[in-house]
Amino acid sequence: MTVVDIARFTDDLATRSGQVIMPFFRSALRAEDKSGGHDFDPVTEADRAAEALMRQLIRATFPAHGIAGEEFGDEQTDADYVWVLDPIDGTKAFIAGLPLWGTLIGLKHKGQPVYGLMHQPFTGERFVGDGQGARYRGPAGDHALKTRACASLAEATISTTSPHMFKGEALAAYRRVEEACRLHRYGYDCYAYCMVAAGHIDLVIEAGLKPCDILPLIPIITGAGGIVTDWQGNPVTDGGSVVVAGDARVHAAALSLLSA
Amino acid sequence: MTVVDIARFTDDLATRSGQVIMPFFRSALRAEDKSGGHDFDPVTEADRAAEALMRQLIRATFPAHGIAGEEFGDEQTDADYVWVLDPIDGTKAFIAGLPLWGTLIGLKHKGQPVYGLMHQPFTGERFVGDGQGARYRGPAGDHALKTRACASLAEATISTTSPHMFKGEALAAYRRVEEACRLHRYGYDCYAYCMVAAGHIDLVIEAGLKPCDILPLIPIITGAGGIVTDWQGNPVTDGGSVVVAGDARVHAAALSLLSA
Repeated sequence: MTVVDIARFTDDLATRSGQVIMPFFRSALRAEDKSGGHDFDPVTEADRAAEALMRQLIRATFPAHGIAGEEFGDEQTDADYVWVLDPIDGTKAFIAGLPLWGTLIGLKHKGQPVYGLMHQPFTGERFVGDGQGARYRGPAGDHALKTRACASLAEATISTTSPHMFKGEALAAYRRVEEACRLHRYGYDCYAYCMVAAGHIDLVIEAGLKPCDILPLIPIITGAGGIVTDWQGNPVTDGGSVVVAGDARVHAAALSLLSA
Repeated sequence: MTVVDIARFTDDLATRSGQVIMPFFRSALRAEDKSGGHDFDPVTEADRAAEALMRQLIRATFPAHGIAGEEFGDEQTDADYVWVLDPIDGTKAFIAGLPLWGTLIGLKHKGQPVYGLMHQPFTGERFVGDGQGARYRGPAGDHALKTRACASLAEATISTTSPHMFKGEALAAYRRVEEACRLHRYGYDCYAYCMVAAGHIDLVIEAGLKPCDILPLIPIITGAGGIVTDWQGNPVTDGGSVVVAGDARVHAAALSLLSA
């Protein structure tokens, strides 16, 4: 198994999972019309169908690999290589018809994330990385991803999916950072992390993430020159709280305010 | 001037303004690299260039019409027909690389909004309406827009660009509605209103809008079967506060909680 094999296979997983998911996107109204309103949940159906397909392809191609998926749990996750799958990261955005959800596909080797891909099938964008480098492919071209320089929070754009994800002291801590930033944006799930990799956003702070929400993004962010830690500055290996920055100065300033 | 003329001309304004804007989208990093960091603001440049072009096309085609634009102010706005232009609604999203800003083009006749278009050039989507009907064209097809039925706030998805747009009692009023809803999403500017027209979001509540932020969207929303008023239930003719709903029951419930 070479890096090229992994890249090509992951790309194929993205293409084929996208084909499974897209017929469900923005289908809620039609589905409701047809079924008379009983229990059809397009996002759950799409999530499950896409993960089932990806698991089948992984098993057939790399039978020795493990799989950790959001919908169907763990499968030989003591293997050296383990795939981490989140077919639809941003299910609330998906439900609301907004095209900023993404399919996350990651690969861990002995516990470390070594390859990651985010695919947005509606916009046709892919963000991939291996911790050493990262690339974009989509309507905006085919080019390397590189975080941008940002000297301080006063110049930074920060994003978080929703301030409602922070409880108690965590909310106060997040607000301290947000108030120190130049601009804040809410609402973008995995897309915001990719915008850090692309050099358009400087900082993402979140909490309560599942491993599959963040592990596939780590090789993209670090491959583009960014930093990923938890709120204490430790490596993120298992979800939880995250601070992602494109510039080490912004990262240090955010950690400092979070723990103030 | 027929309805077909207006539709064709507006579509052409959208195409040509999109061609002007797109080279600036996600260009900040490159621009900074080239200029050594001095004053180049891609979103302002794009906004001004697109509005200048649209004004020139309107003047050449409909010299008797007035124009109210975000960047260059009012021009014979006592005419029967007045164009209302917002080349980039969602400048913060634009700055952050997020493709949910939009170009808004509206036409008023004797003060009433009679035609509107929202164009998202990155996703290639157009939402148009004339108060009687509304249509979508983009990667998801070419079809009529129709709001969805929603019986109560408890079943509703609500969106607002940011809760920071509400001050004092207005924030408390907004929170009462949000807490009564099933799901909330932040961050989508004009795109959220179009998702109401498309039947994916049930309610948008905002405040402090400029006329050009909302007037072009009114014929799309009402053409799809939705309702647009201010927080007191009056018609929106000049920006300010808005309550937009796809179903009259959700609209009434929201007004009631806002004034509670």
